[in-house]
Amino acid sequence: MLPIRKTAKTGKRGILERLDGGEIVIGDGGFVFALEKRGYVKAGPWTPEATVEHPEAVRQLHREFLRAGSNVLQTFTFYASEDKLENRGNYVAEKISCQKVNEAACDIAREVANEGDALVAGGVSQTPSYLSCKDKTEVKAAFRKQLEVFMKKNVDFLIAEYFEHVEEAVWAVEVLKESGKPVAATMCIGPEGDMHGVSPGQCAVQLVKAGASIVGVNCHFDPETSLETVRLMKEGLQAAKLKAHLMCQPLAFHTPDCGKQGFIDLPEFPFGLEPRIATRWDIQNYARKAYDIGIRYIGGCCGFEPYHIRAIAEELGPERGFLPEASEKHGNWGDNLSMHTKPWVRARARKEYWENLKPASGRPYCPCMSKPDGWGVTKGAKELMQQKEATTEQQLKELFQKKKF
Amino acid sequence: MLPIRKTAKTGKRGILERLDGGEIVIGDGGFVFALEKRGYVKAGPWTPEATVEHPEAVRQLHREFLRAGSNVLQTFTFYASEDKLENRGNYVAEKISCQKVNEAACDIAREVANEGDALVAGGVSQTPSYLSCKDKTEVKAAFRKQLEVFMKKNVDFLIAEYFEHVEEAVWAVEVLKESGKPVAATMCIGPEGDMHGVSPGQCAVQLVKAGASIVGVNCHFDPETSLETVRLMKEGLQAAKLKAHLMCQPLAFHTPDCGKQGFIDLPEFPFGLEPRIATRWDIQNYARKAYDIGIRYIGGCCGFEPYHIRAIAEELGPERGFLPEASEKHGNWGDNLSMHTKPWVRARARKEYWENLKPASGRPYCPCMSKPDGWGVTKGAKELMQQKEATTEQQLKELFQKKKF
Amino acid sequence: MLPIRKTAKTGKRGILERLDGGEIVIGDGGFVFALEKRGYVKAGPWTPEATVEHPEAVRQLHREFLRAGSNVLQTFTFYASEDKLENRGNYVAEKISCQKVNEAACDIAREVANEGDALVAGGVSQTPSYLSCKDKTEVKAAFRKQLEVFMKKNVDFLIAEYFEHVEEAVWAVEVLKESGKPVAATMCIGPEGDMHGVSPGQCAVQLVKAGASIVGVNCHFDPETSLETVRLMKEGLQAAKLKAHLMCQPLAFHTPDCGKQGFIDLPEFPFGLEPRIATRWDIQNYARKAYDIGIRYIGGCCGFEPYHIRAIAEELGPERGFLPEASEKHGNWGDNLSMHTKPWVRARARKEYWENLKPASGRPYCPCMSKPDGWGVTKGAKELMQQKEATTEQQLKELFQKKKF
Amino acid sequence: MLPIRKTAKTGKRGILERLDGGEIVIGDGGFVFALEKRGYVKAGPWTPEATVEHPEAVRQLHREFLRAGSNVLQTFTFYASEDKLENRGNYVAEKISCQKVNEAACDIAREVANEGDALVAGGVSQTPSYLSCKDKTEVKAAFRKQLEVFMKKNVDFLIAEYFEHVEEAVWAVEVLKESGKPVAATMCIGPEGDMHGVSPGQCAVQLVKAGASIVGVNCHFDPETSLETVRLMKEGLQAAKLKAHLMCQPLAFHTPDCGKQGFIDLPEFPFGLEPRIATRWDIQNYARKAYDIGIRYIGGCCGFEPYHIRAIAEELGPERGFLPEASEKHGNWGDNLSMHTKPWVRARARKEYWENLKPASGRPYCPCMSKPDGWGVTKGAKELMQQKEATTEQQLKELFQKKKF
Repeated sequence: MLPIRKTAKTGKRGILERLDGGEIVIGDGGFVFALEKRGYVKAGPWTPEATVEHPEAVRQLHREFLRAGSNVLQTFTFYASEDKLENRGNYVAEKISCQKVNEAACDIAREVANEGDALVAGGVSQTPSYLSCKDKTEVKAAFRKQLEVFMKKNVDFLIAEYFEHVEEAVWAVEVLKESGKPVAATMCIGPEGDMHGVSPGQCAVQLVKAGASIVGVNCHFDPETSLETVRLMKEGLQAAKLKAHLMCQPLAFHTPDCGKQGFIDLPEFPFGLEPRIATRWDIQNYARKAYDIGIRYIGGCCGFEPYHIRAIAEELGPERGFLPEASEKHGNWGDNLSMHTKPWVRARARKEYWENLKPASGRPYCPCMSKPDGWGVTKGAKELMQQKEATTEQQLKELFQKKKF
Repeated sequence: MLPIRKTAKTGKRGILERLDGGEIVIGDGGFVFALEKRGYVKAGPWTPEATVEHPEAVRQLHREFLRAGSNVLQTFTFYASEDKLENRGNYVAEKISCQKVNEAACDIAREVANEGDALVAGGVSQTPSYLSCKDKTEVKAAFRKQLEVFMKKNVDFLIAEYFEHVEEAVWAVEVLKESGKPVAATMCIGPEGDMHGVSPGQCAVQLVKAGASIVGVNCHFDPETSLETVRLMKEGLQAAKLKAHLMCQPLAFHTPDCGKQGFIDLPEFPFGLEPRIATRWDIQNYARKAYDIGIRYIGGCCGFEPYHIRAIAEELGPERGFLPEASEKHGNWGDNLSMHTKPWVRARARKEYWENLKPASGRPYCPCMSKPDGWGVTKGAKELMQQKEATTEQQLKELFQKKKF
Repeated sequence: MLPIRKTAKTGKRGILERLDGGEIVIGDGGFVFALEKRGYVKAGPWTPEATVEHPEAVRQLHREFLRAGSNVLQTFTFYASEDKLENRGNYVAEKISCQKVNEAACDIAREVANEGDALVAGGVSQTPSYLSCKDKTEVKAAFRKQLEVFMKKNVDFLIAEYFEHVEEAVWAVEVLKESGKPVAATMCIGPEGDMHGVSPGQCAVQLVKAGASIVGVNCHFDPETSLETVRLMKEGLQAAKLKAHLMCQPLAFHTPDCGKQGFIDLPEFPFGLEPRIATRWDIQNYARKAYDIGIRYIGGCCGFEPYHIRAIAEELGPERGFLPEASEKHGNWGDNLSMHTKPWVRARARKEYWENLKPASGRPYCPCMSKPDGWGVTKGAKELMQQKEATTEQQLKELFQKKKF
Repeated sequence: MLPIRKTAKTGKRGILERLDGGEIVIGDGGFVFALEKRGYVKAGPWTPEATVEHPEAVRQLHREFLRAGSNVLQTFTFYASEDKLENRGNYVAEKISCQKVNEAACDIAREVANEGDALVAGGVSQTPSYLSCKDKTEVKAAFRKQLEVFMKKNVDFLIAEYFEHVEEAVWAVEVLKESGKPVAATMCIGPEGDMHGVSPGQCAVQLVKAGASIVGVNCHFDPETSLETVRLMKEGLQAAKLKAHLMCQPLAFHTPDCGKQGFIDLPEFPFGLEPRIATRWDIQNYARKAYDIGIRYIGGCCGFEPYHIRAIAEELGPERGFLPEASEKHGNWGDNLSMHTKPWVRARARKEYWENLKPASGRPYCPCMSKPDGWGVTKGAKELMQQKEATTEQQLKELFQKKKF
């Protein structure tokens, strides 16, 4: 039986110290999805004004991930660039400034990080500016504005995440590197590569050359698909004789039926994804495979709840030598069922049982897979996407409306 | 567009005033399941020591349900009888007394109830004492001990919930009625009735005769099955010319494949139930059907997260004339998707889309249904259960071990 | 290893001699479905003019069932009453008389029966006359016309099959009994009983009282459901202290989702039923259960192909002491795979493997169950059907068109 | 309404005349699977001694395909090479010579072909000799022995089918070309290519260079996968500036979950494939897609029953200008249901209904997909298979037994 580690609160080591030293770093889960279910984030805009409106809710979620084993608390600044907030924020009764949202996010993350052995990472993600074809200077300016807050609040390191185009991701990394802090970069792509057809291996190479110390993927695809993408990134780096740490933060949804653009095109997105939610055992399986591939920064994105993060920490407990606090409330592979009054429930208190279970959906009128909507699956669209000129949102909308594909 | 109602904090009306006046009362969701995923409750024992260990986590969950529209906050006292806590509590590092757990539960619920228009309900549930064949006096004494705390803390009304045997439920109602407060009673049974073969109609009649003003079911079965059970209770009461309010707090899992004893016997219980989780639209459908049957106390049990409760409040918004606070972060039938950049995602911003969606599981190697374990499905066991003398746990365990069924 | 029995061609014993002597009698499979797939019967009308147009095709199918183990060859006279043929036969280029069809059917069946140990049974089924509310005299006259051919051709015994209303079935039995030959009677009902709400037990009682020596069900439901219906018939007979042999000839389709009127109301009927087709192992399972219930006349209806009948003969080989001719081309539980070149295919050469296989559909976009169309599932319709006056086709059509249900 | 064409019996045009003239040629279906279900072929050996033992059964199946629209009747000589028959034939009571089997197959096919507008094609398939590493001379001698019978019986053209290795297929084509008759060549491969890793495009190029006038695939994969493979063959030929007619004869089973070696590795092979059987509408869809790709020889393999072939003929009726004889017993897209007594069944008498139906399996405890057994899916094995020296059966058996993969 592994010991529960009461988390150290002082003398923390930095992200690169840990990874360079061979440690496993556990990320956190998906804030927008978790807080949407709790009633604090609106699906569609997905903006993080909750940091100002309901800090207690954000704080509690950070705390749950910390207890579950997270070594990194990402500031809840997803889609918190000024252009995005303006664009979508009109549903907020009283306007909340972009700066306030970002600052509050940093403060809350730091407060909770201080309760345990976790680092704070400031994050930027893809911008409407890029998609509407603004130039490099403008897009970089947007990133720089968020970076200023992260520097003022002195986060421990930086993450450029959720980029569909490696070009924009490279720009983000270049800006973040100006800070002197370590930079991680993850794209929301699958094995087919970015929206302009750049392969995962090539994406990784470009990101490392731009200055990222850690590269990988987040969001948009299920664990299995995401691991394959990171594996291709690893191959690309090896071929280019480049070195970087690998990182994976996938969905906690099963999405084998995704097209190139990931789960957003699935008909169930975002309000009918429940039957796809991963079990804790699915996540243990993911953690083990990630480890075997050589990934050492292992976390999650949309759909990951605290118990999914705990599953990573428990699966890799033997390698790390300890369990997280929340494991006080969890048995190893269900062994807490061994005292159940019903003998057939007691029979479930073992690893083999849960590893081999094929969980039923309870939905006899529903299928196992869906066909993705949109250009993700149509041939004409695929061809269009490989030409840069067709990938602006405006052009695609027009093509779609004309039913060209 | 319905108004969001900022919840009244003073001059609240009691549970019977509301129901007698024809109001819809919205219950809350399942604490043990939600807090297990958040890392504060251990599956297996399912005991509520978190009220003492981590009050902030319990408080936050109450608050989320309140924002989602709950009119009743149940004290987190499930399985908090002394015999249960002693029996199972040995995994808690420092022993926490039964009284402390119950008192803390009342305090937290009251604190949050004061933030809005919600009542506090103290709850008792089935006891190990009954199952091990202790006599009426002993079992009643256990209920009375919890009732003392509820009286001291002055809860608004009382709920006897999660009873598999109507005999024990009647004893509980009799004790709770001693308080003079209104009493609700729900059993965790399906259409086949209680574990001794008493039909739902008969169960309802006995509970009302014992003093319950509100009767119904909670836990163990999915919304559809639970509604059918309450419908049978209603028929039973009508036949007996008795009057009572109806209540339903089902699982938020699809369990059409359950045997008589409900979801505990499903092979997926409790760690592989994810593919069965109800969507918000499933719950809107449930709320509408519950209303049509005449049920006016509508809530949930295990699996219900805050967004499921919000779905009840939104579906019945037209009848109630307002929406809950958390609807600020939710569009009507997905209308918040109408501004999405992808035209095919915008096409999902309508009721028809979500009503007709048959969500895929993303699990092509998994079936739709499971066969329940245990005596729930075997013929020999069914016959045994109809004889009182075979239903003690000890006897069933022995029979099971001898592979008699 | 059981011997293959070269079928005796002379000195055959009658149907009641066999059943009274405790023998298992194996029926044949579904002609209209099998010949539709072979190109000789039109779905919709389902009439048997192939006996005149393409006797070689009918003969070949009889022969395959004989080889597979059938002890009874039913004349291919389904829907061959005069009113039915007139009603539907207009698609046949040259009009073929009802008498010709019936006579040819008898001749072909006898020719093949002479090749082995099989009896010839002449069959009548429900008439359009009854459904359009013709009176008893008229309906009986229709049966009598077919009986005349069966007597002229001297069939061995008679079967009244595929009746949805016990009243008409009783009339049929009464007519057939005039012949002095043994009469079997099967209804196409499920556990809910006939279309007027008469229970299976009551149906059986009425049929035996009318003179049937063998009673049971055929068509409309899957093996599992049909066995349950026959079990209820058995209970009804026991309660009435009546004796009769039991018979079961179900679909070879899985139809757990059927409504009261059976597979016709399933959306897949009749051209999309493929994923529901039973495997040979499903049928072995059915044969064993039928035997255990006490059924001794065991056959099939729509969907049963020769290899399904062989599966009955093989499952009950130990009880009968021999295997049918077609078992020369079939191994016991797949043992013929034991010489396969691939080791993992050889590993399938055993009973346990096939018994436990859960065969995949290969259709990830399709569900497991369907909701039946029509009145079979609507409440209003169910109530209507329990009143005699609403069950005429005309009335139901009108109600449906008015969208009353 | 298209006319039914009474088949011409004289003045038939050859296979290349037809294809060169732009005609669609319809193949036939799978004899070993169809006759196994009828009781004349043993699964495992799959040998065609029925041509001698039960010629009436083989003749009837040919006739059904002819009526369904087949323009080619393949001699039932699958696995009828001497080495195969000797190897597997020991279960046949009296030894039947290889020559007799092949001669009878030719005679029966010719007899039925004379009843309509069909050609007779003599077929050879892969040999045990090749798999056990016999040299080119020996393997070619085996093909030559069968060819002698085909020449004596004067078949109309020749097919080399069911080859997993293009090397052996090329040898077969070279032998068959010695006859001076047209040669078609189909491999049982998927998009990943042959067992030595030769791509479909390369396979097609080699076959055409060896003398094949028609190339494509048969067996092992479902229609969708097979069409993709033929499409890749077409691309390969175009790139090499070679011309040939394209041919496709896939399974009538849905097998999206196949590994590289096709359906034999699926756990359901061969006795649990029922839920995968294609509907007639699936086959119409296949026929249309095949036509659109430019394939003009369109038929089927295992699982194809006469009604599947009719579905090809009906789908391509407009292009061909007529329907086959068996369409007298089939309505266009179910229009024969338009006279059904139940209005909701009448509502199924239209193309849209059947095109959009997602047929349910009726098997709620079964999954949609299976994981293939064997080396088809393991990585170690895949690598092994790419080295010639590991692909002999003996070596693979040894590796499997040692659990090397």
